[in-house]
Amino acid sequence: MEGTIRCPANYVPLTPISFLNRAALVFGHRTSVIYGDIQYTWQQTRDRCVRLASSLSDIGLSRHDVVAALGPNVPAICELHFGAPMAGAVLCVLNTHYDPQMLAMALEKTKPKVFFVDSEFISLAEESLNLLTEEQRPLIITITENPTEKSNYMQYEDFLSSGNPNFEPKRPLDECDPIALNFTSGTTSTPKCVVYSHRGAYLNATAVGVINEMRPMPVYLWTVPMYHCSGWCSVWTVAAFGGVNVCLREVNDKVIFDSVVKHKVTDFGGSPALLNMIANARDLVKKSFPWTVQVMTGGSPPPPEIISRLGKLGFRVMTAFGSTEVYGAGAACLWMPEWETLPEEESLRLKARHVNHFAMEAVDVMDPNTMKPVPHDGKTIGEIVLKGNTVMSGYFSDKEATEAAFKGGWFWSRDMAVIDPDGYIHVKDRSQDVIICGGEIVGSTEIEGLLYSHPAVYEAAVVGRPDEALGESVCAFVKLKEGAEAKEGEIIEFCERKLGNKNKKMVPKTVVFSDLPKTSTGKTQKNVLKMMAKNMGHVPMFSSKQ
Amino acid sequence: MEGTIRCPANYVPLTPISFLNRAALVFGHRTSVIYGDIQYTWQQTRDRCVRLASSLSDIGLSRHDVVAALGPNVPAICELHFGAPMAGAVLCVLNTHYDPQMLAMALEKTKPKVFFVDSEFISLAEESLNLLTEEQRPLIITITENPTEKSNYMQYEDFLSSGNPNFEPKRPLDECDPIALNFTSGTTSTPKCVVYSHRGAYLNATAVGVINEMRPMPVYLWTVPMYHCSGWCSVWTVAAFGGVNVCLREVNDKVIFDSVVKHKVTDFGGSPALLNMIANARDLVKKSFPWTVQVMTGGSPPPPEIISRLGKLGFRVMTAFGSTEVYGAGAACLWMPEWETLPEEESLRLKARHVNHFAMEAVDVMDPNTMKPVPHDGKTIGEIVLKGNTVMSGYFSDKEATEAAFKGGWFWSRDMAVIDPDGYIHVKDRSQDVIICGGEIVGSTEIEGLLYSHPAVYEAAVVGRPDEALGESVCAFVKLKEGAEAKEGEIIEFCERKLGNKNKKMVPKTVVFSDLPKTSTGKTQKNVLKMMAKNMGHVPMFSSKQ
Repeated sequence: MEGTIRCPANYVPLTPISFLNRAALVFGHRTSVIYGDIQYTWQQTRDRCVRLASSLSDIGLSRHDVVAALGPNVPAICELHFGAPMAGAVLCVLNTHYDPQMLAMALEKTKPKVFFVDSEFISLAEESLNLLTEEQRPLIITITENPTEKSNYMQYEDFLSSGNPNFEPKRPLDECDPIALNFTSGTTSTPKCVVYSHRGAYLNATAVGVINEMRPMPVYLWTVPMYHCSGWCSVWTVAAFGGVNVCLREVNDKVIFDSVVKHKVTDFGGSPALLNMIANARDLVKKSFPWTVQVMTGGSPPPPEIISRLGKLGFRVMTAFGSTEVYGAGAACLWMPEWETLPEEESLRLKARHVNHFAMEAVDVMDPNTMKPVPHDGKTIGEIVLKGNTVMSGYFSDKEATEAAFKGGWFWSRDMAVIDPDGYIHVKDRSQDVIICGGEIVGSTEIEGLLYSHPAVYEAAVVGRPDEALGESVCAFVKLKEGAEAKEGEIIEFCERKLGNKNKKMVPKTVVFSDLPKTSTGKTQKNVLKMMAKNMGHVPMFSSKQ
Repeated sequence: MEGTIRCPANYVPLTPISFLNRAALVFGHRTSVIYGDIQYTWQQTRDRCVRLASSLSDIGLSRHDVVAALGPNVPAICELHFGAPMAGAVLCVLNTHYDPQMLAMALEKTKPKVFFVDSEFISLAEESLNLLTEEQRPLIITITENPTEKSNYMQYEDFLSSGNPNFEPKRPLDECDPIALNFTSGTTSTPKCVVYSHRGAYLNATAVGVINEMRPMPVYLWTVPMYHCSGWCSVWTVAAFGGVNVCLREVNDKVIFDSVVKHKVTDFGGSPALLNMIANARDLVKKSFPWTVQVMTGGSPPPPEIISRLGKLGFRVMTAFGSTEVYGAGAACLWMPEWETLPEEESLRLKARHVNHFAMEAVDVMDPNTMKPVPHDGKTIGEIVLKGNTVMSGYFSDKEATEAAFKGGWFWSRDMAVIDPDGYIHVKDRSQDVIICGGEIVGSTEIEGLLYSHPAVYEAAVVGRPDEALGESVCAFVKLKEGAEAKEGEIIEFCERKLGNKNKKMVPKTVVFSDLPKTSTGKTQKNVLKMMAKNMGHVPMFSSKQ
């Protein structure tokens, strides 16, 4: 339009680096990071990140080079979320639960020039490097809590000290430039490497604050692994809101209650497994506190029973739906005030549903064959699709996979759901996890929710088991609470009673009592359970139980 | 980066139109607009905006054409904020306090193809059109509350009805495309016409929600004129947060208290004059309510006394600093919890300061001659400069003025301030309003704040008056409260006592009791007061008062 100009006064590429610069100014004297006895202010954190970026530049890192990291949620990993991009580089935090082979594969794929490794994981890193060729091996820098510790590698703090405090941090040339790489959990296949942009990170970090209804200066407890979706983008959110990062090396029920009370935590996040752990926390570690902690959860929707139990302990659970490809949360449950007065069961059902947050343009449920939306009837199952600025830039070095994921201008999530007339989606299952029972699609999450409401059940997961009559039928894997007892018949009867005439196909025909195998991000490994169910053979046509 | 693609699945130009689309889905059944007996849901509001966009396209509006509007804060003006851009057009809401000449000038400048006029302002519009040539005159469409009213023009509701409900709304091709034009208040000179972009509007609307600490589904009372900075971008914010727009034809103390209680208002905004009106509301219209209403105020910082009085009435005042060029609020006062425990006077002083909000990249105070930052010492006065994505695209059709405003990569605000060591700015004055007293810069806002704390003072403004000894000295214009009395000597003594030895130059040498002339946006017209002070002649070297 005539008279307008685009210049540095009115155009700045969107990047979370802006959040850090502002935090150092506005919240400069306030605490940015707490970890044991370590405590930094936002001014100190920015200074440390500037030095980090300077040192990275000094060793030759430049635009779009990859910086890898392996460690728990310690301050250094927090700092790398800003320091690496401020050198123009792309951060890839790797899963601490990988085995050496998987880690080697990830390093081979992402080709980092430098690899920050926490001393707890140094032998894992060394094992993985041994699987690589000489020229594939990045420079290792160790993160250690004991500076006098002998080490073969340069130490993180020394690396920082050598940085120039007056280094001019780099900024993205284009806001769609990459900021981070994140590997998917790999519940379905080999983990894929997802590219995040500065723009997407900025917008999703803002949205996460709004979804969480974060107040200025929140106190955020780091229970979400930073290697998972860039810690759900929350390192950046906390900077935008001038909050405190409470770092943790280890997560358990005691640490959570202790930290909440000690640091007056206002927000954290976690997988349904983490929520389950809190809901079943040992009485002697439970602590009460006179405020409400906002807890964001993702992955599969947590059973209503768990949400309710956490509510009584002082935690308000917000459920989000998402995946690595959508920066963590792509949709969230926005509660309508009128739900609060409904009977608890109905209210919890509604709260287990999701709509796109304001930075995600749209979410819908489509028939994967016709690529058309399914009816908004709360019944027809289809695949969840999303589009918007907080969808990944693509899969790193795999354009073919990127194109397949983006067919028709939507991101195809591989998750199955129904969509209600009010536009909320109700996740039913991962597409490969639905059970085809007598030709009908049965989603597992609803049955799992039901099983969790049984007083003796600690954890549950259902998969399809071959069935002579129905093709597949529901097979439940159940872990009982310590000291609790229940028999297969009781569990089946419980489900029959609760489901009434609603859907007989949802009642498990088989119940197996066992521990549930988990991925490193706390998701149940359904592929393992499916294999177990398959190995059990067919449910006979005329079972004695029928 | 290899493997990435930019496509509709992961890139959508930022625009507030997205907020409306999402609101229609997520908040579809909830109230969007209340105006007297009229009430719409978000689904209805979107339908109406789609029809509006369709009808605008039908009469030949296309990309970057201007749609003008003149009216109070009624639903139609709300709808135009989405309907016009959804036709690709640019909305220009004009000041209802303009005289016909000024209005004609604005129309001549912006060349709208269509002009929506509320029936209350139809004769004003006609008078202004009479000053234009035949081909300069836009098509008029009237907004009326009485559909049976005879009119020479097409009516808004008929125009809407003729629209296609299945029209495919346009979206910006580039997110930096223009969405709105807003005239500056013109406290300094002829009002200038500022261009807003879709990107800036999206980001500022989000920031306004965060600054206001808005909860989901706020109830927003429309006391800020929508012709002022696109209503501080709040039409768009309310859509993003799924809130209710409580529209008003008229604003007074009774309407505000009545509306707050009736509709459970959570947020509104207003000029210091509006706050002053509430603080001095007639007892018989005051109502109490058991929640806190968040009130955003801009323009010159309100006197601490007023903030304190509003607090006691249930209003939490957040002060913002800004201008039309920065989409309304460019900086806001972010309160630190530790301020709450300070003595009230100190706490209020800190709360009258500002830092950039998270969507504004930076704010600083610079010496306009050297174009270098002034020391952060809380003492050195300089000009406030800002940069970021929520700075205007430029002045419409006036590249020269745009370039002058953006010199050195910053927007020069013409406002004077000091900057404290913690990075907060303390606005002292408009650059042309500072008083040069004995060679020293004296800002007027601090003296005005002091005058407001005098129990008899309703309103106050100070300007420089020619002074034989000092060049200029402080001249105060004071309007007393109804029934209150005070003499010049008392006011001067009051200031002397309060200022102590701090700065004798700040003590007014002259006090004039009178009404204060105002601009249409409620700002005191200092240029008029300056003229009055000048006409009073020099303060003599040896005044009898000294």
